[in-house]
Amino acid sequence: MGTTDYDHPATTAEVAVPPRRPFFQTLKTSLKETLFPDDPLRRFKDQPPCRRFVIGMQYFLPILEWAPAYSFGFLKADLIAGITIASLAIPQGISYAKLANLPPILGLYSSFVPPMVYAMLGSSRDLAIGTVAVGSLLMSSMLSRAVSPSENPRLYLHLAFTATFVAGVLQATLGFLRLGFIVDFLSHATIVGFMGGAATVVCLQQLKGILGLDHFTHATDLVSVVRSVFSQTHQWRWESAILGCCFLFYLFLTRYLSKRRAKLFWISAMAPLTSVILGSVLVYVTHAEKHGVQVIGYLKKGLNPPSVENLTFESPYLTTAIKTGIVTGIITFAEGVAAGRSFAMLKNYHIDGNKEMIAFGMMNILGSFTSCYLTSGPFSRSAVNYNAGCKTAASNIVMAIAVMITLLFLTPLFHYTPLVVLSSIIISAMLGLIDYGAAIHLWKIDKFDFVVCIGSYLGVIFGNIEIGLVIAVALSMMRVLLYVARPRTLVLGKIPNSKCYRSMDQYPAAQTVSGVLILEIGAPIYFANASYLRERISRWIDDEEDRLKSLGKTRLQYLILNMSAVGCIDSSGISMLEEVKNNLDRRDLKLALANPGGEVMKKLERSKFIELLGKEWIYMTVGEAVAACNFMLHSSTPKLGVDEPETWSDNNV
Amino acid sequence: MGTTDYDHPATTAEVAVPPRRPFFQTLKTSLKETLFPDDPLRRFKDQPPCRRFVIGMQYFLPILEWAPAYSFGFLKADLIAGITIASLAIPQGISYAKLANLPPILGLYSSFVPPMVYAMLGSSRDLAIGTVAVGSLLMSSMLSRAVSPSENPRLYLHLAFTATFVAGVLQATLGFLRLGFIVDFLSHATIVGFMGGAATVVCLQQLKGILGLDHFTHATDLVSVVRSVFSQTHQWRWESAILGCCFLFYLFLTRYLSKRRAKLFWISAMAPLTSVILGSVLVYVTHAEKHGVQVIGYLKKGLNPPSVENLTFESPYLTTAIKTGIVTGIITFAEGVAAGRSFAMLKNYHIDGNKEMIAFGMMNILGSFTSCYLTSGPFSRSAVNYNAGCKTAASNIVMAIAVMITLLFLTPLFHYTPLVVLSSIIISAMLGLIDYGAAIHLWKIDKFDFVVCIGSYLGVIFGNIEIGLVIAVALSMMRVLLYVARPRTLVLGKIPNSKCYRSMDQYPAAQTVSGVLILEIGAPIYFANASYLRERISRWIDDEEDRLKSLGKTRLQYLILNMSAVGCIDSSGISMLEEVKNNLDRRDLKLALANPGGEVMKKLERSKFIELLGKEWIYMTVGEAVAACNFMLHSSTPKLGVDEPETWSDNNV
Repeated sequence: MGTTDYDHPATTAEVAVPPRRPFFQTLKTSLKETLFPDDPLRRFKDQPPCRRFVIGMQYFLPILEWAPAYSFGFLKADLIAGITIASLAIPQGISYAKLANLPPILGLYSSFVPPMVYAMLGSSRDLAIGTVAVGSLLMSSMLSRAVSPSENPRLYLHLAFTATFVAGVLQATLGFLRLGFIVDFLSHATIVGFMGGAATVVCLQQLKGILGLDHFTHATDLVSVVRSVFSQTHQWRWESAILGCCFLFYLFLTRYLSKRRAKLFWISAMAPLTSVILGSVLVYVTHAEKHGVQVIGYLKKGLNPPSVENLTFESPYLTTAIKTGIVTGIITFAEGVAAGRSFAMLKNYHIDGNKEMIAFGMMNILGSFTSCYLTSGPFSRSAVNYNAGCKTAASNIVMAIAVMITLLFLTPLFHYTPLVVLSSIIISAMLGLIDYGAAIHLWKIDKFDFVVCIGSYLGVIFGNIEIGLVIAVALSMMRVLLYVARPRTLVLGKIPNSKCYRSMDQYPAAQTVSGVLILEIGAPIYFANASYLRERISRWIDDEEDRLKSLGKTRLQYLILNMSAVGCIDSSGISMLEEVKNNLDRRDLKLALANPGGEVMKKLERSKFIELLGKEWIYMTVGEAVAACNFMLHSSTPKLGVDEPETWSDNNV
Repeated sequence: MGTTDYDHPATTAEVAVPPRRPFFQTLKTSLKETLFPDDPLRRFKDQPPCRRFVIGMQYFLPILEWAPAYSFGFLKADLIAGITIASLAIPQGISYAKLANLPPILGLYSSFVPPMVYAMLGSSRDLAIGTVAVGSLLMSSMLSRAVSPSENPRLYLHLAFTATFVAGVLQATLGFLRLGFIVDFLSHATIVGFMGGAATVVCLQQLKGILGLDHFTHATDLVSVVRSVFSQTHQWRWESAILGCCFLFYLFLTRYLSKRRAKLFWISAMAPLTSVILGSVLVYVTHAEKHGVQVIGYLKKGLNPPSVENLTFESPYLTTAIKTGIVTGIITFAEGVAAGRSFAMLKNYHIDGNKEMIAFGMMNILGSFTSCYLTSGPFSRSAVNYNAGCKTAASNIVMAIAVMITLLFLTPLFHYTPLVVLSSIIISAMLGLIDYGAAIHLWKIDKFDFVVCIGSYLGVIFGNIEIGLVIAVALSMMRVLLYVARPRTLVLGKIPNSKCYRSMDQYPAAQTVSGVLILEIGAPIYFANASYLRERISRWIDDEEDRLKSLGKTRLQYLILNMSAVGCIDSSGISMLEEVKNNLDRRDLKLALANPGGEVMKKLERSKFIELLGKEWIYMTVGEAVAACNFMLHSSTPKLGVDEPETWSDNNV
């Protein structure tokens, strides 16, 4: 922060108090900044009414935006992408429904209606809609605490619809209220750890299918699962295990091939479907279902039956449904929007989180009316969609049509599909979610993010999914609160050959100015840090005085607080400044402020702190403040030495 | 932020990455800054071992610090102050014990042992130790939800001791762990609102005593109390009400006199005791106790009986005791430390929050062993102590001795003290806690603090004390989180006749630089604001391009982000910067950073963002960045216009 070119330490301009505005205008502005940072009405400005209507409709139904410009080239691309993701969606849908302890057919239902709804309302061009593994597992683990899926499958099913409905209503409401930003509180580190933990847990659960076990724990934690697996070693079925390992090997091989050459993505995309076909043929030919290999069995033909009347709002289970809906709704939306944003960034278009939330909400509400359970945009399937060259959300419609054809005509083909194949498909999809590379990257960049990530991972695998989530969110919040509660205070020094004052820690070459201590406060001054700052400032002064004394230099005369980074101050903060000022007065030190911002000046003026301090003690830059202090030092006690003799004569102008 | 005096836009110095330090050293430093901001070991540095021992003893027993220098003058002052506060402590102690639904004698016990303990351990010279109204009410309202004080007084009493013990253990533990700063999260605004609400509630409760009612609600909210009062209008006793009003008038009159002349403080300090004496004499003479005026009755003679064996750690009530202990422990400590700090500031000495917390903890633990309940340092009594000219904590010892004499010889005198006098004493003390002036002050300075204050007040009087507290703390936290989740972004412009770049909102005279958009980010870049900032920055660019287009100016070429106020960045924040950089590349804009701090540079280097951006795009000041942009603008396309033609030729050097 430089000073002027003048030869006397006059200030270039007074530090301004921003122009006063009426209270309601301030309130309006700050509400707008908080809730409407993207200014959704921007596009409506200066438009004729009928154009406004069109834009409004396009806002709520993005399909109206891209459909008119839809071309044959787009159709060809979307057709290929849609069929590719359908080949993935059908086996994964069935697998995830099993994971959620729901009838397998629900996985197909859920890949039919929701993608259609999303194609109308969603703003992502790359998201492939369908059920997600983590959401399925979360639903199963939360609902089965209230109702056993094996003993009372009907009630369990109805609760799943209800939870989906609740999740949809929550998503749509948050979207309408423009509160979509709450998912931002799930940081990238949280999601990496959480997803990794959930994927680990899901893989462990698949040991049931791979080993062909009939009874298995409903708990999801590592300890229970391992105990459950090893307590029934005599029940392990080798046929099932061998089949599972073969398919796992096949799936990993195809994935390896696709990873080596991006053009071969379709090999791994088709692998689940070919596994299902191979597995089914194998079972059908060898009659393995009679030798310990469990199969899917009968799947009802036909499209989604309505399920509106199945929603249960009865008292004992409603709480469970609401709790499940809230947790799964937020988590799956966070996963979906993260995937959507990643691909939008690659293609350079914008995704509005609130609009997306409404689309997800509507899709889940309508889904819960048509026998679908919770859907979102899984990352892996969306990546396949993206790689297959999808152009618009029409690829979801193509997928939905493919699923519809399956539902109408092909369900009997899945009768002999062995469950172990489904388990292999889940494991192979899940291992991709354990992103240890990202965890290592976090460790390198930011240790705290790494702690959040590992905390969330361990919480999920040793506790349960909610515990992991709570740990991660609590740690992340704590970091934000600690940042404010324990703001950094830095001692500034003069950078040689310049007029800048910068942190002595960062710039070891920076030099102190004798008789003046310059501190920078690095956070808003709030109730949470007011006492800390008071004590810390007084300790800096003590330390500096000790240092000066030990060097035999003149004592401290001025304290300059650089307020550049103090974005805001509250009433406790102002009391703190008053106390510091009184304290300095008693020690015969002068206080000067450098570069307080608009908000801070407003508060300081209202609280009459400026009067107490004297307007002449507020400077626009640290340099000006130092110059003024030096000027006064020299005019009052010309004998005082300065650390760098040239400071006053040359640099401090 | 100024630039150099050179004639070409070279930078004065490179933006430094702070020197690398081993991980554990960084961890140690940040833990020290978080937990030991006051550096308690500072005084031990460079001292011989035996001196260290003495200092260590003095640290834990502050009495060793002041006792050796104790003089006759001090004794005289402390004697007067001690007797004054004893005259207040005896009637208030009895009253507050009634408020806590405990036997009145406990109020006297609690004014005997805890002040002695505090005098040894406490570092405040002005705090008068004793029971507090809000703590008493809180204890009564929390405990009586589990055990009825009228039906099972014995268990209730034991629970009160247990809760006191828990509060003491909590306080001492937090103090030892140096977590005393958690009380800082109770902001001044919270405490004003909370205390006001609690005082209102306490006053309402006194209607029981004033109206001489036998049955009264245990709930503390306004609605229940009003209903309870007006549902039994036929039970109102006029004798009691008249007596109460007379004493209230007397107490208010003395307070008014004392307020007008500070020297007459003793009039209002003595008023409660004189009321008690007057009231007792009046009842004794008129036998009013037989005409509907309730009296205290028999008080046992003798010092505190031991109560260690009364602590109950049985399962059904333990949770209640722990919960009550935690809440009351934190609240009463916050009240005490706030009072202690206020007077320390007036006398210019320092109070260590953690040491204070240990002192409070020990005093409550030992109190719970000797039939005392929760004690703290009430503000009003400490103010009397201060006004009476106390010099050291010895005034507490004097008070304790006075209470001891009362306990040994004078308890029968309180037999005829009418309860209505106690109610009047409580009301008169409580009305001083309703600090509407502070609320008005908050409204003027900081609207949000006012909302916190009123939220807490309304929560207390319409819900209960805990609800008020939760509302206030939640609102305060929300503010901190919102500050980080929605950081301000400011457009900077050049201040005329200087080289500073400042917010255009604050300095309406600031001028934009053509082709360059300068933004200042006002908070750390964290997961919570990364997506917001990404969107907000892109909207600023859109807005600026629209503005330039409408003015027919050249298009935007550079975006400069001023990072001065960005104290920290996490992995999500770095991803955000990478996205912004990619986005700008696509729009053919260049990104430059100005003045990133040490922490930020460290992270940017580790994540290789500096390589991505190019080290030449990081400048120490906004001025240098602008100069460099202008230089490039001119050397590449010399025809481009600038907003102020002289910018390049003269100022921007």
